[in-house]
Amino acid sequence: MNKIIDVTELCLRDAHQSLLATRMALEDMVPACADLDEAGYWSVECWGGATFDACIRFLNEDPWARLRTFRQLLPKSRLQMLLRGQNLLGYRHYEDGVVDRFVDRAADNGMDVFRIFDALNDIRNIRHSVNAVRRNGKHAQGTICYTVSPLHTTENFIEMAERLVELGCDSICLKDMAALLKPQPAYDIVSGIKARCGEGVRVHVHTHATTGVTLVSLMKAIEAGADCVDTAISSLSLGPGHNPTESLVEMLEGTGYEARLNKACLRRVKNHFATIRPRYQAFMSNIHGVDTDIFDSQIPGGMISNMESQLKQQDAEDRLEEVLIEVPRVREDAGFPPLVTPSSQIVGTQAVFNVLMGRYKVVSSEFADLMLGYYGKAPGERDPTVLALAAQQAHKEAIEQRPADLLQPEWEVLRAAATALPGCDGSEEDVLTYAMFPPVAPGFFASRELGPKYLGVDPKAAVAKPGASGAEPSPLRAPVTYDVKLNGRSHRVSVTPISE
Amino acid sequence: MNKIIDVTELCLRDAHQSLLATRMALEDMVPACADLDEAGYWSVECWGGATFDACIRFLNEDPWARLRTFRQLLPKSRLQMLLRGQNLLGYRHYEDGVVDRFVDRAADNGMDVFRIFDALNDIRNIRHSVNAVRRNGKHAQGTICYTVSPLHTTENFIEMAERLVELGCDSICLKDMAALLKPQPAYDIVSGIKARCGEGVRVHVHTHATTGVTLVSLMKAIEAGADCVDTAISSLSLGPGHNPTESLVEMLEGTGYEARLNKACLRRVKNHFATIRPRYQAFMSNIHGVDTDIFDSQIPGGMISNMESQLKQQDAEDRLEEVLIEVPRVREDAGFPPLVTPSSQIVGTQAVFNVLMGRYKVVSSEFADLMLGYYGKAPGERDPTVLALAAQQAHKEAIEQRPADLLQPEWEVLRAAATALPGCDGSEEDVLTYAMFPPVAPGFFASRELGPKYLGVDPKAAVAKPGASGAEPSPLRAPVTYDVKLNGRSHRVSVTPISE
Repeated sequence: MNKIIDVTELCLRDAHQSLLATRMALEDMVPACADLDEAGYWSVECWGGATFDACIRFLNEDPWARLRTFRQLLPKSRLQMLLRGQNLLGYRHYEDGVVDRFVDRAADNGMDVFRIFDALNDIRNIRHSVNAVRRNGKHAQGTICYTVSPLHTTENFIEMAERLVELGCDSICLKDMAALLKPQPAYDIVSGIKARCGEGVRVHVHTHATTGVTLVSLMKAIEAGADCVDTAISSLSLGPGHNPTESLVEMLEGTGYEARLNKACLRRVKNHFATIRPRYQAFMSNIHGVDTDIFDSQIPGGMISNMESQLKQQDAEDRLEEVLIEVPRVREDAGFPPLVTPSSQIVGTQAVFNVLMGRYKVVSSEFADLMLGYYGKAPGERDPTVLALAAQQAHKEAIEQRPADLLQPEWEVLRAAATALPGCDGSEEDVLTYAMFPPVAPGFFASRELGPKYLGVDPKAAVAKPGASGAEPSPLRAPVTYDVKLNGRSHRVSVTPISE
Repeated sequence: MNKIIDVTELCLRDAHQSLLATRMALEDMVPACADLDEAGYWSVECWGGATFDACIRFLNEDPWARLRTFRQLLPKSRLQMLLRGQNLLGYRHYEDGVVDRFVDRAADNGMDVFRIFDALNDIRNIRHSVNAVRRNGKHAQGTICYTVSPLHTTENFIEMAERLVELGCDSICLKDMAALLKPQPAYDIVSGIKARCGEGVRVHVHTHATTGVTLVSLMKAIEAGADCVDTAISSLSLGPGHNPTESLVEMLEGTGYEARLNKACLRRVKNHFATIRPRYQAFMSNIHGVDTDIFDSQIPGGMISNMESQLKQQDAEDRLEEVLIEVPRVREDAGFPPLVTPSSQIVGTQAVFNVLMGRYKVVSSEFADLMLGYYGKAPGERDPTVLALAAQQAHKEAIEQRPADLLQPEWEVLRAAATALPGCDGSEEDVLTYAMFPPVAPGFFASRELGPKYLGVDPKAAVAKPGASGAEPSPLRAPVTYDVKLNGRSHRVSVTPISE
């Protein structure tokens, strides 16, 4: 008897977030839902901060309506979302009452599995969301952000898993957002969690494909006892995305493990996304193939492009090398936070400041907050000199408590502000949309009734599905002009292909 | 103490053969050689049938001179080639005297490691080359073509390895040209070979990346005791190519295995090929990401596109599905040959014939030869009815002996024909060039003195190497001739791009 390996399909959330700048519109997902629902996945990830943001910022699409659509079209499937703990889907800490209402509404609208993480792995930022999910009778998945630093030992990750289990999490996720998880650490951490927390504790593993090694890491995690792994259908996989679902299925043949997915469904899902992917050409990631430099630099690719554009704005593109050397120093000063949104941007920007203006001559307010504990507790000791500088420049004290403990109840304030906006329908969902993205929500509320749109997406770029009736790829019609010399005389000849 | 895993680098041969239609010119390889030589590879694969062919057909480059250049620029490295057994680098069986001379000249010009395979895994087609390599004091690697069929069991592959060892091979290669080798079979075959033939028998594993699973297969092969694996530098990897060298190196960290390669050298090699790759845009494979359909269809991607173009020529593109169903039948009738050049083309073409004209109404002469034993012994029983039809249509008898045993000494004939060609320098190397590619060699000999050219390659597409001094890609100089109709009269017009 093979052990069944569960699979979470990422194509509706992280895959297009990683490959197509989160731009995929609901109407391009709908045709795949029936097959996704029948394929036999453990869960279908379909919601998160960036997809919520892109809905209201670019697509004029109500993210709550999107969730309800998924609930309707995927009746057999567990719907899964990524939740940034006390940050929910936004970029600041929310007061517990907002967290409660967000989780209640997400659960009511159809969410089943909440994968909850904190960028600093500060468990205090995860606790309240976990409780809210459990109160709703839904699946609370406690998440460990995998990173590499002198402090992030296997033992350290196993201890965090223990604490997540104590919190009452229904499962543990080892989340490797930067493709840094090599096979042996994957094996060691997963088997360590199983040994410490018990074989019955479900362990899920999320990796990206960027470095090219992580399908091997998934194999090792499975050998170590992982219960579920995350993959994306092959036509939305690889590069900065994820390992292909179909490859996982095939990889396991004969190993004693089995991902019991319906191959005919997978093939149709693959073909669907292969067909619509060209529409998003303008948003496609430039990263192809693999990049293993990140193992040495510890700096994710997305973070480098951020820093490059910051340097460019200052006419200082030639100083990137210095910034790349500065990043690990800044990270160490800050107590080795994992480099993931938002800590990656905060550390990167401070490294740019340090190179351009001298070390900590100017401290960004976000970096000051990071140093002073306003994002939570850093994994390690922070540099006392830099800490003092941050306090001085930000005119703030360092804090030790959970950041959200400093917040006053804010639901009524948010509700008043949201409901005053033209187009707000007064629902708790709308208040939450406003709470998550205050600068973006007003425009969305005002334009919502126009309905979803392909903003910036060229639907004509779609390649016709083979066998699809009616749709014909447009023939090459552009004339090419040559300068042709014939018997010594120059002729201007225009050649236009003629379709037959 | 970690076990050292040896690595064969493929960037100079199979990588660009798989990704850039074998078009890479020597001058684009030269700048990488110093780093390749220092990186610490077990061998550098740099020569084979398709690269030899492309040299004389497209690049006006002497393949023997290319080999001598590698020998000079890679003094510390084992140079490795792929040899098609009794077919050498051509498409027919050669008499043993030609095999001897070919191996002698290759060894004399600098080749160290000869990877020798036969498309049918008929060991009789490998034997003479192995003896010739050993007589030259070089490394003879006996190769098992991996394929999937009811006959190709783990035991069957292990037995073939035994026979290759008995032949005197210095090492065994498990060659997975279609990316069909899954992790568990990789483990079982490699560990089986080690158990049966002895731990001291070196096992090398060659895989392609097409299906996305084979880096895991390399990991399993390593765990099973493989001594050496094949990879390609990341900027010339993945898709229908190979797993990335850098990912292999990183993957092994902490596992007790180690590929001791110099990362700084790898990074420079990667950057070099990333820089020159855009020059070959016109030849780039359209396959990106992964394709796992081949696991079910057993039909390699390249074979499907061949059959598609054959159908198109007959205005029968709509019958591809029928052909895809016919292919496994034809393969079974022929005794389950591995589907690799040339058997893949032969089986594919016969399947097209069967669909268009009725089953075996017309038997291609190549398929008749395959059925009748003129390529060697098929792995399994051939269908007696089809065998009889083939004999009848081809007016030939089935043979049981080694095909080359039917051949008369042919060296003098080849030499006379070659040396009569304008531009032939009379060397044994030139005779062999003619012997391998009789239709192509005359044109090459005639134009050789013009020197290597970038035929069809657009050097303007190359991104300039940051900071590279001096070296400029040679401009495209080949005239293109058009037949242009102007006012009803036909004109032969030659167009030559003029450098600015």
